[in-house]
Amino acid sequence: MGKDLSFGRREFLGAGLTAVAAASVGSSSEVLAQQPAKPLPAYVGWKDPNALIIHSDQTLEMKRDLFGSSLITPEDRLFVRNNVKAPPDSIVADRDGWRVEFAGVKEPKTLTLGDLKRMGVVTLATVLQCSGNGRKYFMDKLSGDQKMSGTPWTVGASGCVIWSGVPLKTVIAALGGQVTGVKYITGTGGEEIPAGLNPKDLIVERSVPLKNLDHVILAWEMNGKPLSVAHGGPLRMIVPGYSGVNNVKYVKTVALTVAQTDARIQSTNYRYHSMTEKPSPDHPAVWEQPVKSWITSPLTDKKAGQVQVTGLALGGMNELARVDVSLDGGKTWKEAKFVGPDLGRFAWRLFVLPAVMPPGEYTLVSRARDAKGNVQPEDSPLNGSGYGYNGWRGPAVKIMVA
Amino acid sequence: MGKDLSFGRREFLGAGLTAVAAASVGSSSEVLAQQPAKPLPAYVGWKDPNALIIHSDQTLEMKRDLFGSSLITPEDRLFVRNNVKAPPDSIVADRDGWRVEFAGVKEPKTLTLGDLKRMGVVTLATVLQCSGNGRKYFMDKLSGDQKMSGTPWTVGASGCVIWSGVPLKTVIAALGGQVTGVKYITGTGGEEIPAGLNPKDLIVERSVPLKNLDHVILAWEMNGKPLSVAHGGPLRMIVPGYSGVNNVKYVKTVALTVAQTDARIQSTNYRYHSMTEKPSPDHPAVWEQPVKSWITSPLTDKKAGQVQVTGLALGGMNELARVDVSLDGGKTWKEAKFVGPDLGRFAWRLFVLPAVMPPGEYTLVSRARDAKGNVQPEDSPLNGSGYGYNGWRGPAVKIMVA
Repeated sequence: MGKDLSFGRREFLGAGLTAVAAASVGSSSEVLAQQPAKPLPAYVGWKDPNALIIHSDQTLEMKRDLFGSSLITPEDRLFVRNNVKAPPDSIVADRDGWRVEFAGVKEPKTLTLGDLKRMGVVTLATVLQCSGNGRKYFMDKLSGDQKMSGTPWTVGASGCVIWSGVPLKTVIAALGGQVTGVKYITGTGGEEIPAGLNPKDLIVERSVPLKNLDHVILAWEMNGKPLSVAHGGPLRMIVPGYSGVNNVKYVKTVALTVAQTDARIQSTNYRYHSMTEKPSPDHPAVWEQPVKSWITSPLTDKKAGQVQVTGLALGGMNELARVDVSLDGGKTWKEAKFVGPDLGRFAWRLFVLPAVMPPGEYTLVSRARDAKGNVQPEDSPLNGSGYGYNGWRGPAVKIMVA
Repeated sequence: MGKDLSFGRREFLGAGLTAVAAASVGSSSEVLAQQPAKPLPAYVGWKDPNALIIHSDQTLEMKRDLFGSSLITPEDRLFVRNNVKAPPDSIVADRDGWRVEFAGVKEPKTLTLGDLKRMGVVTLATVLQCSGNGRKYFMDKLSGDQKMSGTPWTVGASGCVIWSGVPLKTVIAALGGQVTGVKYITGTGGEEIPAGLNPKDLIVERSVPLKNLDHVILAWEMNGKPLSVAHGGPLRMIVPGYSGVNNVKYVKTVALTVAQTDARIQSTNYRYHSMTEKPSPDHPAVWEQPVKSWITSPLTDKKAGQVQVTGLALGGMNELARVDVSLDGGKTWKEAKFVGPDLGRFAWRLFVLPAVMPPGEYTLVSRARDAKGNVQPEDSPLNGSGYGYNGWRGPAVKIMVA
C-alpha cells in the first residue's frame, strides 16, 4: 500500500480491491497500513479485524495493546464470547416490540421493550469480562498429565462499557413485587435451540442471588448506541460486578426463583471445581468477579529514560483502594496513582506509575487491593475449568530497556 | 432490501452492490434497513452516514435522536467542524514522530509526541461543542433585514468524549516553567495553508487565558483510540470547558504569550459582537461555554401514559447544580434527577424526569443551573455571529400525545 495514506474509505473501495479487503477497513486510518487480518465471522463483520484475536467464531479477544487509557472500550474492539450461535439481526428489526416475560412476581406479565423504556432509565459503567479471562495463565502452569479445555484467553476478554436501561427493581415493583420464598434472579436468553437437542443442555439461562436486585438493569443501549446483536441486543440483563455469562443476552424471561435453574450452563458449567472432580451444582458458581489488574503499557521494549507505566484495575463488586506496581517481577513495589474519572465501583480505573528506567530487563506486574482488603494473589488457585484468574503473576510483561 | 437482515457486512458486499452503498454501512445493523444516506466527505468516510446531517464538507452535525443515554458520544457519530481542510491521513503515519514546538518557556524546545507520552498521562471527559452550536435558534428570531451567516446548527454540534494525554503544565514545568509576563496559551494547528494566501487569514491559531494551564491537556487518544485526523490527530490541545475552536487540532506549536495571536480566527473571528458592529479584538472572545441543556427524548409523538423525559446538561466550566424540566413550554417546571456516572465538571450529565402524560400537546424544555448560580436564560442575547446560544427556548420539543 506504500506510504500514501491520504485517502478515505470510499476511494479505497474505488481502487478495485476485493470485498474481503474492504471489510478489513476499520474506523482507524492506521489499519490501512497493516496487513489484511483474518476475516471476522459475519455476525461481527462490522468490528475492527485488526483489533481482535479470533480464537473461534464464538470467541474473539481484544489485543492487549489496544486497551488505551481513556477507560471506555470502543464497541468495534470489544471481545465477543457467545455460548450459542448469535440470533440473526432480524431480532433487532423491531427493538421496541421485543417481549420479555416476568415471573416470580405477584402480577406476572409479559412486557415489551417499549414498555420497559417508559418505566425508567439509568446509566451504568461495568467491566464486562469473560468468566475464563486469564485461563491461559492457568494452562501455562499445568503439569504433565493435567488438561484444561476452553479458550486460552489472556487479558483481552474484557472491556469497560456504559449501559443504559431500566433498573430491574423498578420493573419488579411495578409488577406487585416478588412472591415469597424467592432467592435468585434467573434470566433466559433468546438464542434459538436447534431441533432435536435437549434445550437444557444448550439454553443460556443463568441464576444469580436475589441481592443483586439492588443494581441489575435490563439494558438496551451500550456506549451510546442501541445494543448490537453481538453484545446481546435488543435487551441484555446486566448484573454489575458479575462475570460475562451472568449478563444474559437477548433476555426473554426474567424470573425470580426459589432455586437456581437446572440448565447445564448453570448446574454443571461455570462452577469452580478441582482438577480431579466433575463439576456439580455443589461447587461454587462463577458469579462475582474478583479484584484484578494488569499492565497495559509499556508492552514492548523501550529506550531508557522516563516511562509512564499504565494499567487497568477492577474491584469486582467493590471500590478499589490502591494498586501497586512492580518493575522487577514482584520483588519491590511502588504505589501507582489512579487518574481520570471514576465511573463507579463496577467499572475499572486507569492507574499510572511514572518510572525512570535505566537499561536492563524488566518484569512489569501490578497488584490491586479493593476497599474491603481483598488483594490479588500471586497466582489464583487452579480450578478445573480455568475460571476467575486474578493472579498478578500471569499477565506479567517482560521487556528490555536499552 | 426487504426484511431479511440476517447477514453481515461481508455478505452484504458480496451481493454486488456499489462501493458507495458499501461505504454507507455503519456498525449498527439497523442502518441496513434505511435509505442510503448522502455520501460523506472522504476524510470522514468511516463515520456513520445515517448519524450525520451534512451541512457542508467541513460541517457535519449529529442527529438529535442519536444522543442516547450512555453519556459518551461514539466517534463515528460525533459532529465534525473544520475551519480549514483537514490534513491528509499521512500525518498520522508516524504518530510518535509528530513534532511540537514549545515557546514562552525558559527552555524552549521541540518535543515529539513520543517524548510527550513519556512525560505523563491523564484522562478527562469533556463536552466538545462547536462555538456556533444552536445558531439556528438565533437565526429563527432574526427580523426582516437582519442577516447572520454560518452553519445553522441546532444541538448536534456537540458530544461528550474522553481524552487521554499529558497535562500541559507537566510539559511547561519540564521546560523550566513560563517566562515572565505571559498571559495566554497560544496553540497553532498544523493545517496546510494554500500558497499565495495570507497565513494570518487562515491559520488556526487560538489564544486562551493562562489560568487554563491548570487543566489543559495535549491529547493523543479519544474514546479509547488513537485520535483520528478528523478530530485533530495525532495531537490536539484540549481546553476543558472551552468551545470547539479553542481545542486546536494537529497542534504543532504551543506558546505561552504576552498577547493574543493576531491570526484572524482569534482577532476578529469568534468574537461576541452586536448585529451592527464589525467584530474586532475589543469584543469578548468565544472561550468558556455557558451552562446549557436540552431534551434528548422524547422527540416524537407518543402514546399517552408514563414517559421518561431525558436530556443532557453541561455546566461549561462549573459543576451542575440542578436541571428543571417543563412540559408546557416553560409555564411550570419540575426538578429532574441526574442519573449515571459523573464524569467530572467538564463533561455533561444525563438527567431524567419521569412524567405521566395524558393526551394533549406538549412543549418540552429544560433549564440547567450550575453550582455558581448561573442559569440558562429563556433566549441568549443575540450576537452578530451567532455564538454561544444557551437559551432553553430554542431547542424546545413540541410533541402530540394521543
